[in-house]
Amino acid sequence: MENKREYDLCSLGEVMLRLSPQGNERIERCSTLEKTAGGAELNVCAGVSQLGLRSGIISKVPDNGIGSYVRNQARSTGVSDDYLISDPNPKSRLGVYYYEGAAFPRKPSVIYDRDGSAINTLKVEELPDDLFEKARMFHTSGITLALSDTLRETAIEMMRRFKEAGALISFDVNFRGNLWTGAEAKKCIESILPLVDLFFCSDETARLTFGKSGESRQIMKSFTEEYPICVVASTKRTVHSPKRHSFTSVIYDRGSDTFYEEEPYRDIEVVDRIGSGDAYVAGMLYGYLKYGDCRKALEFGNALSAIKNTIPGDMTTSSREEVEAVIEDHQHGGAGLEMKR
Amino acid sequence: MENKREYDLCSLGEVMLRLSPQGNERIERCSTLEKTAGGAELNVCAGVSQLGLRSGIISKVPDNGIGSYVRNQARSTGVSDDYLISDPNPKSRLGVYYYEGAAFPRKPSVIYDRDGSAINTLKVEELPDDLFEKARMFHTSGITLALSDTLRETAIEMMRRFKEAGALISFDVNFRGNLWTGAEAKKCIESILPLVDLFFCSDETARLTFGKSGESRQIMKSFTEEYPICVVASTKRTVHSPKRHSFTSVIYDRGSDTFYEEEPYRDIEVVDRIGSGDAYVAGMLYGYLKYGDCRKALEFGNALSAIKNTIPGDMTTSSREEVEAVIEDHQHGGAGLEMKR
Amino acid sequence: MENKREYDLCSLGEVMLRLSPQGNERIERCSTLEKTAGGAELNVCAGVSQLGLRSGIISKVPDNGIGSYVRNQARSTGVSDDYLISDPNPKSRLGVYYYEGAAFPRKPSVIYDRDGSAINTLKVEELPDDLFEKARMFHTSGITLALSDTLRETAIEMMRRFKEAGALISFDVNFRGNLWTGAEAKKCIESILPLVDLFFCSDETARLTFGKSGESRQIMKSFTEEYPICVVASTKRTVHSPKRHSFTSVIYDRGSDTFYEEEPYRDIEVVDRIGSGDAYVAGMLYGYLKYGDCRKALEFGNALSAIKNTIPGDMTTSSREEVEAVIEDHQHGGAGLEMKR
Amino acid sequence: MENKREYDLCSLGEVMLRLSPQGNERIERCSTLEKTAGGAELNVCAGVSQLGLRSGIISKVPDNGIGSYVRNQARSTGVSDDYLISDPNPKSRLGVYYYEGAAFPRKPSVIYDRDGSAINTLKVEELPDDLFEKARMFHTSGITLALSDTLRETAIEMMRRFKEAGALISFDVNFRGNLWTGAEAKKCIESILPLVDLFFCSDETARLTFGKSGESRQIMKSFTEEYPICVVASTKRTVHSPKRHSFTSVIYDRGSDTFYEEEPYRDIEVVDRIGSGDAYVAGMLYGYLKYGDCRKALEFGNALSAIKNTIPGDMTTSSREEVEAVIEDHQHGGAGLEMKR
Amino acid sequence: MENKREYDLCSLGEVMLRLSPQGNERIERCSTLEKTAGGAELNVCAGVSQLGLRSGIISKVPDNGIGSYVRNQARSTGVSDDYLISDPNPKSRLGVYYYEGAAFPRKPSVIYDRDGSAINTLKVEELPDDLFEKARMFHTSGITLALSDTLRETAIEMMRRFKEAGALISFDVNFRGNLWTGAEAKKCIESILPLVDLFFCSDETARLTFGKSGESRQIMKSFTEEYPICVVASTKRTVHSPKRHSFTSVIYDRGSDTFYEEEPYRDIEVVDRIGSGDAYVAGMLYGYLKYGDCRKALEFGNALSAIKNTIPGDMTTSSREEVEAVIEDHQHGGAGLEMKR
Amino acid sequence: MENKREYDLCSLGEVMLRLSPQGNERIERCSTLEKTAGGAELNVCAGVSQLGLRSGIISKVPDNGIGSYVRNQARSTGVSDDYLISDPNPKSRLGVYYYEGAAFPRKPSVIYDRDGSAINTLKVEELPDDLFEKARMFHTSGITLALSDTLRETAIEMMRRFKEAGALISFDVNFRGNLWTGAEAKKCIESILPLVDLFFCSDETARLTFGKSGESRQIMKSFTEEYPICVVASTKRTVHSPKRHSFTSVIYDRGSDTFYEEEPYRDIEVVDRIGSGDAYVAGMLYGYLKYGDCRKALEFGNALSAIKNTIPGDMTTSSREEVEAVIEDHQHGGAGLEMKR
Repeated sequence: MENKREYDLCSLGEVMLRLSPQGNERIERCSTLEKTAGGAELNVCAGVSQLGLRSGIISKVPDNGIGSYVRNQARSTGVSDDYLISDPNPKSRLGVYYYEGAAFPRKPSVIYDRDGSAINTLKVEELPDDLFEKARMFHTSGITLALSDTLRETAIEMMRRFKEAGALISFDVNFRGNLWTGAEAKKCIESILPLVDLFFCSDETARLTFGKSGESRQIMKSFTEEYPICVVASTKRTVHSPKRHSFTSVIYDRGSDTFYEEEPYRDIEVVDRIGSGDAYVAGMLYGYLKYGDCRKALEFGNALSAIKNTIPGDMTTSSREEVEAVIEDHQHGGAGLEMKR
Repeated sequence: MENKREYDLCSLGEVMLRLSPQGNERIERCSTLEKTAGGAELNVCAGVSQLGLRSGIISKVPDNGIGSYVRNQARSTGVSDDYLISDPNPKSRLGVYYYEGAAFPRKPSVIYDRDGSAINTLKVEELPDDLFEKARMFHTSGITLALSDTLRETAIEMMRRFKEAGALISFDVNFRGNLWTGAEAKKCIESILPLVDLFFCSDETARLTFGKSGESRQIMKSFTEEYPICVVASTKRTVHSPKRHSFTSVIYDRGSDTFYEEEPYRDIEVVDRIGSGDAYVAGMLYGYLKYGDCRKALEFGNALSAIKNTIPGDMTTSSREEVEAVIEDHQHGGAGLEMKR
Repeated sequence: MENKREYDLCSLGEVMLRLSPQGNERIERCSTLEKTAGGAELNVCAGVSQLGLRSGIISKVPDNGIGSYVRNQARSTGVSDDYLISDPNPKSRLGVYYYEGAAFPRKPSVIYDRDGSAINTLKVEELPDDLFEKARMFHTSGITLALSDTLRETAIEMMRRFKEAGALISFDVNFRGNLWTGAEAKKCIESILPLVDLFFCSDETARLTFGKSGESRQIMKSFTEEYPICVVASTKRTVHSPKRHSFTSVIYDRGSDTFYEEEPYRDIEVVDRIGSGDAYVAGMLYGYLKYGDCRKALEFGNALSAIKNTIPGDMTTSSREEVEAVIEDHQHGGAGLEMKR
Repeated sequence: MENKREYDLCSLGEVMLRLSPQGNERIERCSTLEKTAGGAELNVCAGVSQLGLRSGIISKVPDNGIGSYVRNQARSTGVSDDYLISDPNPKSRLGVYYYEGAAFPRKPSVIYDRDGSAINTLKVEELPDDLFEKARMFHTSGITLALSDTLRETAIEMMRRFKEAGALISFDVNFRGNLWTGAEAKKCIESILPLVDLFFCSDETARLTFGKSGESRQIMKSFTEEYPICVVASTKRTVHSPKRHSFTSVIYDRGSDTFYEEEPYRDIEVVDRIGSGDAYVAGMLYGYLKYGDCRKALEFGNALSAIKNTIPGDMTTSSREEVEAVIEDHQHGGAGLEMKR
Repeated sequence: MENKREYDLCSLGEVMLRLSPQGNERIERCSTLEKTAGGAELNVCAGVSQLGLRSGIISKVPDNGIGSYVRNQARSTGVSDDYLISDPNPKSRLGVYYYEGAAFPRKPSVIYDRDGSAINTLKVEELPDDLFEKARMFHTSGITLALSDTLRETAIEMMRRFKEAGALISFDVNFRGNLWTGAEAKKCIESILPLVDLFFCSDETARLTFGKSGESRQIMKSFTEEYPICVVASTKRTVHSPKRHSFTSVIYDRGSDTFYEEEPYRDIEVVDRIGSGDAYVAGMLYGYLKYGDCRKALEFGNALSAIKNTIPGDMTTSSREEVEAVIEDHQHGGAGLEMKR
Repeated sequence: MENKREYDLCSLGEVMLRLSPQGNERIERCSTLEKTAGGAELNVCAGVSQLGLRSGIISKVPDNGIGSYVRNQARSTGVSDDYLISDPNPKSRLGVYYYEGAAFPRKPSVIYDRDGSAINTLKVEELPDDLFEKARMFHTSGITLALSDTLRETAIEMMRRFKEAGALISFDVNFRGNLWTGAEAKKCIESILPLVDLFFCSDETARLTFGKSGESRQIMKSFTEEYPICVVASTKRTVHSPKRHSFTSVIYDRGSDTFYEEEPYRDIEVVDRIGSGDAYVAGMLYGYLKYGDCRKALEFGNALSAIKNTIPGDMTTSSREEVEAVIEDHQHGGAGLEMKR
């Protein structure tokens, strides 16, 4: 299913600076912060790129050291920064978020400081016209639609332009109650679903945001009945405690009218859960783009997400070899050798 | 139940320097130490203050950088240092303790180096006379009574003076076998129980130190029968491993002849258990002072103690909002949203 | 000259989160950041408070962990947070700045991200009426005037109210070209100079911003001729390299028509120069408030500023004893004992 | 069973530099590495020495700062460096390995870079003749035999020389598939088994490498029937996840024809599993050398191995008192006091 | 002078892992190491790329986490890894070096452990044929020629192939006495000088290695008389102490028969001098490639080298704007604003 | 001059735990401390041992993790811990000191917390009788005499016993005004000078404490006229700033009636000056013990002291090779190669 376009995946979304206390410290008193780059769509790109496909992030960052930092981080994961625009406005800022992990009975917490960040003014015209011919797939998320009116228009226009140029369109609802209401999200997202080929939407979001009801599988299928969506993916996370999760997903393929599922990864030893949803998207899209196979997409998505939970920061670092080894272990009951040496 | 005194709580006790290896390292070989301030009564003050009431620590520290450090730490948690006396003696020292966490089957360990510290010479005359009018409640512990003869006299005299001025007297037995014998503790503590309104004593201590026997609830009640104690609180900790505890408590209210209890916090993911007993006292006293309600006292005590276990250092950092969210989760079976965003 | 008001100094200004690479690392690639609190007026308060007078910061911070952090930091230096308002707006943010030190021939750099921070909406009505009776002196700076229209009005109104209530008014021009133009600054500041008693303005700013010319001393004096200003202070910093500065100042006292000067601190070994100007203001105001003596003000200002350069972060930590020892050394040619032990 | 030789244990093996990411970071991107010394035989020596017996490591390291580092580390654990030869060859190198821990479902991984290290050229003639008279026991492992032809010859010759001089010979198979094949290992090790008194071989290795089959106990016994081996020890590790193991062992004593066993240490909270096999050997040899008792050897071996898992780095730090306390807890169901204070 | 080839610069050389103690610690006892990537040619590429041209590194690294690390680091600086071959040999290793900084009178020291690293087996056939058409310039150094016979052949063949395809050839002698003798170097390098366009050779190396004598300028010119070299650059470093250097250079342009010089950067505050020679090459080649002007080449070379000394690690991080600001300051006597804000 | 005793040097003195802020942080607010072992006599032993002679420390430490830590540190430097007694008293403590470095115009500071430490109760009977036969030289300092009456008696008795057994006696006045007065020191030290062979006393101490006057050389010589002292050494330190010192010394040899001197090490880049006096003693004694030559003693003393200033912590890490290279550089005007590679 591979073809000759320059990028397997291009993705539009905000790149942020993430700041987190070290170890188990608290934001109210820690004296140092761990600094990483993140953002839902960058995380997806990084995951796809580490697995071996070519990806590029479309975004805008300030023309200062903080902008350079996230650019360097994107590049270090193999993500192209050719469309990571440097904002010449001296007042330009990068969105920041502070993340603090936790242990039971305390919960992780996040403080967003992303208003007025550089990407909010991004327009299609700032990007070269030939961009839209270069990618096999375009991905974005509900976060991007929710950030600003300008960015929403840009995102929707990009979906149209990529679609016209023959790319697949992937969309992750990624509902965030601190950015917009469910009603706003529903209205906006329903307007773009006619463009979407691959749709990521959890069962809870389908019910709360889209007002769906009934059995989970039927809800997934209904999206493909109402819209020309080919594939719907829905993750199932169980949070036993901040340090212990279980995870799996279901994928529905309209073409074959088939639901793909597998046993959950149980008792994942969570080090950092941020970005594990994006890692799922990355693994799933990798499997789909590389093998054109929803079974592969399911396996890579579930495994990459499970692994991401064990790694600090937003982004995965897993090579294809690492993910395949985890998949094999998972299919054989998790046994396998403890460690090769 | 709030009134117009300047402090909701004043507490007398030793402030110490705590030094701990970073991560999982061992004291025998680590090359850096984490430095925090602690001490049972300071921990209680800090907990109460973070929750929103006004507290002050009564103690004595050397007039050097180490003394300034613990003063700064106390202030940063909102605890008043107006009665934290600076010892002009150039030989004055601050007590130090080294704490090393552990993982099963190894146990945490602590090395005390507190002999001859500044507080041991503290006399009532070093404090202003109007102090005793300023607080709604005075709290101290068995550790303070055990440290030196001078300090014991000071502590008992303070209990009298605060009592006379209309404050409630709170006392936590906090038995430490490395400071005195059970017999010494029993004799001394029984002499001050006529002054005590709120009494913290675990079941084990009641049996081993005070020679009580019989059913736990009956033991708690007996203290109120023998002394004019209004409220007795007894904690129940189960140590599954150094990294996994369960915790709850029982409070007996003489006025209503009622025992207050709730389900334990199970499988707490312990990061640092030091100070979790003090956090219980802080939460319990907060609930009592704020709401005049033993049910609230129980809920805040249990939740704050459970949360403290997940935080490094001696002192809590929890705001009232954080504790209330944990209480609500606990009462609804721990489910709730994983994280708001 | 001491009197019975609750605060010796109250100061209005933005409290910020400062983030800096550790060691000599660069913002473009470092993986951790040192986290401290800062802001010109907070730095002044902290300096005055560490020296032994009572100060309070007037500002607004978000009601989240970042807001709590800077509050805790202010308190740890002994600065009162009674007027550090917690902003209930969930979108509220704290201004952030990134500071990177340097070595010759590279220069230090700073990235500000302070637009739209909580303090910009602060109004006088948010503060209690009796605040204005409580302080012997009120201090603010040109930065506060430049941040937003609302804040400017608030600042000017506060100057009026404090003045009416009998407080001295101190003002530091602290010109920042990234906040406003020289012309804007001149117009605004000239409108408030009739309220000012102590005026901090460097020679360069007097020339570039206020259009003064001629000999330096005459420039300083001219301010007192045009406005009812009592004292003008002007710092003289020579930057040999990012790691080596020299520093002194001149103070003009209108009452005695006297210029106070002393030999510069030469070849200061600079660790972190940020906040050394604020430390000068703090030391100078301390000397003035404590001793009512411009000679003392000069000595404390110069010494505290010189010392601040040797300390990481925005804020000083120097006690009166430390500063007095440095002053004594300075007056005796820097000899003295290397270290007492 | 103690006697008057200078060393209770001398051991021949490679000393390596171990480099590991801090916290949960990954080797692909971490910016610092934790640096420790390790190597199977050094780990055994360090364990025995910390418990109170005298041990010495026989090895060769480069004459540079890296060589000095591992020498200093060996000395700090009380291991004699009298036979840790400094290689004058300026091209000499120390073997390095990179270890990265993990959390489920990811696995720990190790990258070896040990080819051509200093020890590979070690010859018997480089050591003083009287060395062989000085030790009660000599220990080495299959790793040493596998590293190079020269070292293999040296190791076998040393076994002969120590044996002749009356020392006990201890050998741990420690099979590593990245160093040699099972067939190579079998051939080589069978040639030295006539010299061996104490033999460490897991059930899995006995089956896969030596081609044994049948019941585990019978396999252990068979080695003593085919060779003049006195004691065979076999460890049983169950890996529930990278952070949770269970561990026990079986020891067969030919003299008394007895199998020694005990309940496993269940749910060990693993911090760093590297060296826990060597800690087993250390504890077992300590028990055997100190008490001449396989029951003691079993208890010390199991406990020291279990404890090692909770400590970062290759080497144990446990004193005899610590191990005895863990053994006592283990024998009483793990209860005991949480922590003494 | 810019043209349309894909890379402005391609460079062949070993990529190494650099490990250094933190702060002022010593390799013999430090417990952590700072981990960075380096290597003369990678440093040159990174410098050129950060300044805004397109560069690619040609090298070979092991297919493991250490190989991925240096790949990620190269990418993060904008250097293309398209020709950074992953060595499938499981025994493949990356060269390591340990660097320890110093303070007077102690000297910095370096321990190399680079024998047998992956690049030593690199052959031209491992690279695609079209590589040679893609670059405007090819750069390598004497280190690459000295490492192994195979690599030397590869390097020389690449110089031929790039030359044939129209690229400029740049060569830095970079003599290292621990890799080969002066006689070996002379013989080998003289054999490739007929291919070289830009030649970097210090005065000292010209004398000691090439047996030149006489006045420095004459020595530089002589290389262009004996070989078809266009430009010769020679650096002048004065080491006052490990923390204070002065630096400048001379460039001779054969075409115009002109020597370019400027005042030294005096009293550079050295943080880390490693890679400052490579930064010189990077800046010089950037100036030459971008502007075709030896004056610009001189200015960029000197400034980038001076700046590099103030930055930890092997690689520069300086943008064109930063370098231009330092050049401007330098040309105006170093004054300028201390810091913009 | 070497002979066959087991130790070249045995030294009696307190071993302490040193705690210091990292980087340039201050004790009042830093959140971590660097932990090292120190103590004047241990520092001397470590210096001598690193240079290649055999040394042993005579002291007493608590039987806990802190005691083990300093034991491990002593061993890691090659100092024998055979006479480092473990104090079984559970109340036993190790002396602690907090050291904070500085930059001009701030001064370094030290806080001692050493009262009642384990060594204060040490008696000669706690050591084996054959100790006194084992050393070529015994060294102690005025600190040891000042700590407690018991320890003073022990120290003097040891000087007698070692002297009787034929060892040389070395004594460093090391006057500390916080331990005793000058008069007390004079009286005590004069009583032991009849036992001393090598005497370390600075010019300032000779004047202030011993009441000497006149020309420096004459003062040194006078000690050998009044007492049977063979060699007197006097250091000359000039403190330009906390980060820049100059250092040299004078040695007077009574036997040859010769003064040995050399040019100072000028502008030493000071990283940590603590222990540089002890490093002088170590280098001087090494030179004397190894070569029996006061010129060598002078050179090694001056160089080792100068180098120590560039290394964090109390103890040197310099090998003989490193010191010899610094001496050679010093004798050739400091030029030499910048770094070998």
